Amino acid sequence: MLDLIKGRRSVRAFSDAEVSDKMVDQVLEAGRWAPSGMNNQPWRFAVIRDQDLKGQVSRLTRYSGVVSGAGVLIAVFLDREAGYHHTKDVQAMGACMENMLLAIDGLGLGGVWLGEILRSEQEIKKLLGAPEPYELMAVIALGHPAGPKPGPTARKPLSELVFFRK
Amino acid sequence: MLDLIKGRRSVRAFSDAEVSDKMVDQVLEAGRWAPSGMNNQPWRFAVIRDQDLKGQVSRLTRYSGVVSGAGVLIAVFLDREAGYHHTKDVQAMGACMENMLLAIDGLGLGGVWLGEILRSEQEIKKLLGAPEPYELMAVIALGHPAGPKPGPTARKPLSELVFFRK
Repeated sequence: MLDLIKGRRSVRAFSDAEVSDKMVDQVLEAGRWAPSGMNNQPWRFAVIRDQDLKGQVSRLTRYSGVVSGAGVLIAVFLDREAGYHHTKDVQAMGACMENMLLAIDGLGLGGVWLGEILRSEQEIKKLLGAPEPYELMAVIALGHPAGPKPGPTARKPLSELVFFRK
Repeated sequence: MLDLIKGRRSVRAFSDAEVSDKMVDQVLEAGRWAPSGMNNQPWRFAVIRDQDLKGQVSRLTRYSGVVSGAGVLIAVFLDREAGYHHTKDVQAMGACMENMLLAIDGLGLGGVWLGEILRSEQEIKKLLGAPEPYELMAVIALGHPAGPKPGPTARKPLSELVFFRK
């Protein structure tokens, strides 16, 4: 498990090979099984494959190339009406998205968690007809990787992260 | 990977068998490899094994039995000085904690994410000497499971979670 976790990478370049609906559902399934406070499962998903729609989304972020090159986009929302404590709900959303990224990697796909696009939350919600209480958390872009797996990004050593042991 | 994700459970009853330092470090290592916005790695950890200290923590939550029965507690903090966008930082913390829970499960240990204890944030920070900018995110209680793995908790079907597909 630790190898799978450490082996996950952000993939930003995709081939044209199709991502099957079954694979997309497996990714969503991984998100669905995340833990949440009070088991409130506040996650909601929008799945985008349509080229024209991807083009519209791509114009709402600095990372246009990643978005328009991805086979599938999954916009991930927190349903505030299902929430009970905003910080804990947002943590659960992070757990949900990490599960999805791990599943993407486990399926031999590549994906990346896009957060910069939150600045266009209102435009994204309008494009997708998202209900008012839905808060955009991120867009995950995924597809078949175009090249070899990228190397790891730097990580702080545990000695800098653990401030207390007794 | 999906089986590992779906097989994770919250474990709240622990045996007296010792959790090795090596296992604790593997759990922290899984957290360390979570993704974070701008790769800012805002997670900070406190590891508690001391019986007396566990007793003090157990008096700060409704889940005293879980806390005092666990071999190890890991208090997880967001270092706001390392943060750049609170919502995205909290998401990263959720990803970090999910990685830790998956690693706990993968090691054959059991663990549970305790959020209710946030109401005692100031007391926990004082006990651990946590710096002022550290925000308590949760306490993870872990140990060797006392019994068989619990069954799954209920999950909403994908049809209730996916509101848009095109």
